[in-house]
Amino acid sequence: MNAFQPNAADTGFILLDVLRAPETLAALPALADNADPDLIRQVAEEAGKFVGEVVAPLNRDGDEIGAQWKAGAVTMPPGFRDAYQAFWQAGWPALSSAPEDGGQGLPAALEAMLYEWLSAANHGWTMAPGLLHGAYECIKHHASDALKAHFLAKVATGEWLATMCLTEPHAGSDLGLCRTKAVPLANDPEGRYALSGTKIFISGGEHDLTDNIVHLVLARLPDAPPGPKGLSLFLVPKFYADGTRSAVVCERIEEKMGLHGSPTCVMRFDEAAAWIVGEPGKGLNAMFVMMNAARLHVGLQGVGLLEAAWQKADAYSKERRQMRAPGGAAKATPVGGPPPDGQAPSGGNALHAVKSMGASFQADLIEQHPAMRRILDAQRAWIDAGRVIAYRTALELDVIKHHSDPARQARANRWCTLVTPVLKAAWTDQAFHGASACLQVFGGHGFVREWGIEQIVRDSRVAMIYEGTNEIQAIDLLLRKTLPDGGGALQALLKDLSAELPDGDAGSARVRSEIDRFAHFVREQLVPATQADGAAADLPHWLADDFLRATAMLLMAWGWARIAATPGADTPRWQTAYQGFWRWVWPEFDMRLAMMAQTLST
Amino acid sequence: MNAFQPNAADTGFILLDVLRAPETLAALPALADNADPDLIRQVAEEAGKFVGEVVAPLNRDGDEIGAQWKAGAVTMPPGFRDAYQAFWQAGWPALSSAPEDGGQGLPAALEAMLYEWLSAANHGWTMAPGLLHGAYECIKHHASDALKAHFLAKVATGEWLATMCLTEPHAGSDLGLCRTKAVPLANDPEGRYALSGTKIFISGGEHDLTDNIVHLVLARLPDAPPGPKGLSLFLVPKFYADGTRSAVVCERIEEKMGLHGSPTCVMRFDEAAAWIVGEPGKGLNAMFVMMNAARLHVGLQGVGLLEAAWQKADAYSKERRQMRAPGGAAKATPVGGPPPDGQAPSGGNALHAVKSMGASFQADLIEQHPAMRRILDAQRAWIDAGRVIAYRTALELDVIKHHSDPARQARANRWCTLVTPVLKAAWTDQAFHGASACLQVFGGHGFVREWGIEQIVRDSRVAMIYEGTNEIQAIDLLLRKTLPDGGGALQALLKDLSAELPDGDAGSARVRSEIDRFAHFVREQLVPATQADGAAADLPHWLADDFLRATAMLLMAWGWARIAATPGADTPRWQTAYQGFWRWVWPEFDMRLAMMAQTLST
Repeated sequence: MNAFQPNAADTGFILLDVLRAPETLAALPALADNADPDLIRQVAEEAGKFVGEVVAPLNRDGDEIGAQWKAGAVTMPPGFRDAYQAFWQAGWPALSSAPEDGGQGLPAALEAMLYEWLSAANHGWTMAPGLLHGAYECIKHHASDALKAHFLAKVATGEWLATMCLTEPHAGSDLGLCRTKAVPLANDPEGRYALSGTKIFISGGEHDLTDNIVHLVLARLPDAPPGPKGLSLFLVPKFYADGTRSAVVCERIEEKMGLHGSPTCVMRFDEAAAWIVGEPGKGLNAMFVMMNAARLHVGLQGVGLLEAAWQKADAYSKERRQMRAPGGAAKATPVGGPPPDGQAPSGGNALHAVKSMGASFQADLIEQHPAMRRILDAQRAWIDAGRVIAYRTALELDVIKHHSDPARQARANRWCTLVTPVLKAAWTDQAFHGASACLQVFGGHGFVREWGIEQIVRDSRVAMIYEGTNEIQAIDLLLRKTLPDGGGALQALLKDLSAELPDGDAGSARVRSEIDRFAHFVREQLVPATQADGAAADLPHWLADDFLRATAMLLMAWGWARIAATPGADTPRWQTAYQGFWRWVWPEFDMRLAMMAQTLST
Repeated sequence: MNAFQPNAADTGFILLDVLRAPETLAALPALADNADPDLIRQVAEEAGKFVGEVVAPLNRDGDEIGAQWKAGAVTMPPGFRDAYQAFWQAGWPALSSAPEDGGQGLPAALEAMLYEWLSAANHGWTMAPGLLHGAYECIKHHASDALKAHFLAKVATGEWLATMCLTEPHAGSDLGLCRTKAVPLANDPEGRYALSGTKIFISGGEHDLTDNIVHLVLARLPDAPPGPKGLSLFLVPKFYADGTRSAVVCERIEEKMGLHGSPTCVMRFDEAAAWIVGEPGKGLNAMFVMMNAARLHVGLQGVGLLEAAWQKADAYSKERRQMRAPGGAAKATPVGGPPPDGQAPSGGNALHAVKSMGASFQADLIEQHPAMRRILDAQRAWIDAGRVIAYRTALELDVIKHHSDPARQARANRWCTLVTPVLKAAWTDQAFHGASACLQVFGGHGFVREWGIEQIVRDSRVAMIYEGTNEIQAIDLLLRKTLPDGGGALQALLKDLSAELPDGDAGSARVRSEIDRFAHFVREQLVPATQADGAAADLPHWLADDFLRATAMLLMAWGWARIAATPGADTPRWQTAYQGFWRWVWPEFDMRLAMMAQTLST
């Protein structure tokens, strides 16, 4: 079983050549000094080395040994603490934090690349620092100066890790149902609150990676109104400044399908002394800062996990021979003696296919079989386009933060608002389904633990659920972000996409016409039908998933048109995946349009 | 976590009302006495009781404790042996075996229902008897009288279990590469052979369920030609008649993604004394008897596992409340006090969706959310149509065996030949993907072991691989069974399907026109393009998967038209799934046609 290896040439091509990140960054005063392509390449190379050499080798033990709970303490899998200590001491968590907070002030797109690789290498380990940047932004923008003095730098640099404590046993997707209470502490000079309640599904609620853990917790003040508007945000650390431990207990960790390297904790707060972060009743607002970054990161997990699965399947398909491929005679090699390389077998008992071999006893590489090529090329199409979409989103996040032109910022904001849920839902969906397709390349051995491919299938499944289920992403995109303004923002995004396509090449022309077709559908069918007098309230809910998928297909088509038009993309490496996109991925677009049209006419 | 419960009313409706099984069976002299609907209902009820009360409760331990290997011996999970002993003593393995061999002579369709339920209840346990009927047929039709005298009744009744030893480390899908050797034993009065080699992926190669195990093994005689034509079939038991143990060793069992209740064994044969079964060089031929039954059974596993997943998700969706459903105000219930029923939460941190709740703090049942209804109704559509296809296939197997009219037998043979690979591939694919969709209904709790839904996702994954990978099924259907006769057999099947649709109802008319469209495509586009002079040898391989999927969609449409036209199907139970089929499943048909057309024009 090979551990994941970051491919800086592949990712660099997307970020630097396709997206021309340095041009975007050069327009941002805060980042202009760090926009140099050579600097970006150098950081990426160092990041790749760390991920490949330090983090990736721990993935197997993370799954098999996992995080262990005992009497409230959680021991992380072997090597996890050392790797994390090396990670923060090298400054990786602070990559895109502001220099004045102890950060390195590098572009968010570099951080995106780093987290994609980390997730590919070791999803479980990466859960620990995954929420750090969001917590940093949350504290930076909402906490009091006194709180910041104590916590900001520790979180910005990653010396301490952080959690988001939202879900409760009866309040999952529906946080308005939260019951955790915060009551003012009598005579507390710091004006703190006593926090009581139980939170579940808390990733990294307890562990031994860092010397302290900072919990950000949603709770209700006394007399707060019911529902989401009654929620405030609080901060409570595992240890206070004087070294005393807070009244926060990890009651147990969940037994899960995968992601065993990340402890999913049930956390009990027993009148734990906590500071409020931001205004009372504005807890969700303060957490929104964390949410957008978190959803981009989950989308990047999807891209990374799919790349990890593809790498394994691709390597296997180039080593293992089985059956004759059609027209493969020229390339076939006799399989006579003992297995030359100790390769393990693919499974299945396919007598039929054997019969058709007749008297020929040669076998072709698995990569030469069309059914397997479809699988491999389709995943490559998803991964490469996913990088275009995800890195671009990261660039736009920096534009929102640092650009001086409000119109450009608004455009960036539109991108992030509309594209983030698509990235999160479609690419986490593909991580799971694509990893399963890659497992198929191994035949029976894919089902066996040894090769590590089934771990990716198990680990990736959760990303379709957390940070808002994929169905909720679809509702967010259609119901909250598209229909309320009559599709205006979406139409503007589609125009932006068209405008960024080069003129004169056939691929771009095709994508432009598909964008127009989608824009027309939204304008002439979707919006009028859902907003007609007497339209059923649930009508858009029935097609939200189709709408998100169709949007994902369009974004991918756009990404591939951008890749194909980039100098250097005329090699088999890129052309194979480009053709794979049109052949094996794109046809879903028409199906989704047809499904929506049918629903609208029902 | 609820264990699976067979629903005899649901399955009985398909077998007795939709398929009118008694009419088919009454025409078969050997089965006419057992064609009484009341008898069938009674046996089904008893079977359901056994499955629900004895086998289903063992499923969790089967996963968590699993089969354990120690020094060559395999201990099955708690309760597995007792359940198996009760199973064979009650005569269940002999359900469809011939009375003269100790069987009960009941229709294969009843056995199909039994195995669907068993797989739903406990996939791991069911692997043990899963190959039994195929082994019985193999011995019955190919073994010598002396062999039969010793082994046939034991296998027919299930007193002893059996294995199929095909795969070797270098020979998975490609059995022609097998190297296991059989050398005549010097001076053996029984004319036996010394069998030597290593077989892998042997389900139930070793266990403690029965007092003996019968291995059917593919191997090469000295001077056998290379490739599949050099393979002969041998029988070697764990224990010979005199009680001595054969030289067959279970070297280890595999660590797998799921199916922990079934030991997947590496078996070493060290000059084990073995009898030949059938003619030298005809080993694959003898095994074919086992293959068709095995593929139907794997398709039934798919149907059963999907039903098990649906049952869990359906129950959860009727208990758990989360968020407001659109237009659901009337049905909403305040969620104020402590959770009334200790329900565990669904996960996700969907702040967006919460915000849109405004100041409302009621929540609707998960089943009222359109995104969740889509998932539930689509799986129901697959399960019900899958039963129509699978039970019909079982009926046709009995027609092949027992009908007196060769033309009717030929028609049955055509059905089984063409439909079996579709059933195997499409329904095992859906078992995995549909179980994952059902997991989504649980939100975060789906990823946690407690509810048992993630076990179904893990267990079901292997069915896409074994008994011929799903890609090999597609190649079998298109390359071996459709194109060689210019699509003739397929066209005849499509005609049969049309002829069996009732006249005058709109659903049937729609399906008939879709059948015509597909027939036209095959005749006018697919066959000519792939058989044209200069057509690339690999052309049909690129679209085999699409062809199988399109065929599956057509078969489902046919199944649903049959269901919808059956008296009693006008209830919400059936109408919801029927509409679900057309809305959420059927649109793939057009996509597959478009993909094939594109491939043909590439």
